[in-house]
Formats: sequence, structure tokens, C-alpha cells
Amino acid sequence: MLNKVNLKEEVNAIEDLYVYKKIGSLNHHILSVVQVENRTLDFHVHEKSDELFLVLEGSFHLETEDGLLEVNEGEFVIVPKGTLHRPVVGPLTKFLMIELEGTLNKENSGELYED
Amino acid sequence: MLNKVNLKEEVNAIEDLYVYKKIGSLNHHILSVVQVENRTLDFHVHEKSDELFLVLEGSFHLETEDGLLEVNEGEFVIVPKGTLHRPVVGPLTKFLMIELEGTLNKENSGELYED
Repeated sequence: MLNKVNLKEEVNAIEDLYVYKKIGSLNHHILSVVQVENRTLDFHVHEKSDELFLVLEGSFHLETEDGLLEVNEGEFVIVPKGTLHRPVVGPLTKFLMIELEGTLNKENSGELYED
Repeated sequence: MLNKVNLKEEVNAIEDLYVYKKIGSLNHHILSVVQVENRTLDFHVHEKSDELFLVLEGSFHLETEDGLLEVNEGEFVIVPKGTLHRPVVGPLTKFLMIELEGTLNKENSGELYED
């Protein structure tokens, strides 16, 4: 039987910040949820995958060479592969992320996946 | 500059039922939104792509050979490629869909994409 997944229940059940919790897989893309607070990652590029950030709660800024884009609850932004970017997060913000498997690592996401 | 997309604003702006509105592209996968009411599609299979249904508003049943799965607002289900399925929709329900480009057609979705 197929399973359904509740986005807010999954992200709210994570006990720690910065831990990516895998909640689904679609054609070798990983859907994960994460809670982030007061963190600005280093600028980085994903060479092999576009990357989707959907804000489930809160708000953040996606910074590129063109400046800062504010993304609020219920909104998403897709960063094309090869685009220099970094997320800038202040108050607690909860995300759904989608990208090709193998894209995220400790250097570009701050943390590894939950086991 | 990158654009952000508001899911509910995009789906609420569609004037007609059953029209898939493309709102994003991620590694050759199409993100689209659609409003559906009182429609049960024929059972079908996507041979080349998994398919994600995220309920933005309302509720529907995803029917497979294992039975009916109720999926409510804020929940998603991913139908693996090769899985016989059909959505069963009663009252007005609004969806985000994600699947490999070229997956949806008039036979399996009821309608073509909006231009």
C-alpha cells in the first residue's frame, strides 16, 4: 500500500535543527524536510542538480549574485544547477527540499541526513 | 534574478477546472497546479516516471490495486512508476503535481497543459 506524508507533521517531528529528514523519493530525487535557525551557509553551486526550497513555516532569503530574494511560507524557489547561491536564515524556518540524490553533503548543507 | 512562486496564489488564479498550469521545472520534472472537482480518471500507469500529488486544498482518494488512500490538505503521496492508479476526486480539491516532463497527456490526466 502506498503511504501518504504530512509535510508539517514530518518537519515538526524533527528534534534537532539542521538535520535533513528524508520523507520521500521521486525518480531519484530526494524530498527532505529540515528546520533551520540563524544560519547562513557559504556560497556554493550544485553542478548536477536544480534545487527546490519550499517554505513550510517562516521565511528566509535566498542570496545569489543578483541579490537577496525573500521567500515566505507557502512559497518556493528553484535554484538552477550551476547557480551560485546560499540560504540566509534568521528566525526558525521550516523547509521542504527537493534535489537529485547525492546533491547535499556536509559542505553545502551544513549537516548530513538523518539515518 | 530567480523568481519565487506562491503555491496557493498560483492554483487559485486558474480560471478553469482540470487545466494543469506549469509553475516550475526541476531537472526536467514539471511542477504544475490544477483544480479538480467530481472527477475519477480511468486507471492508468506511468511507465517512465513516479508521480507526486500534494494536496494544497481539499482532499481526494488515490486508488490502487490495494484500495483507496485518503490524502488531505498538506499531505502528499508518490505513486511509483509502473503502479496502476487513479485519483478519485469529489468536492473541489487543489493539487501540486510533480512528474517527469512528457508524463501527463490527455489520456491519463483528462486535459492538456495550459499554453
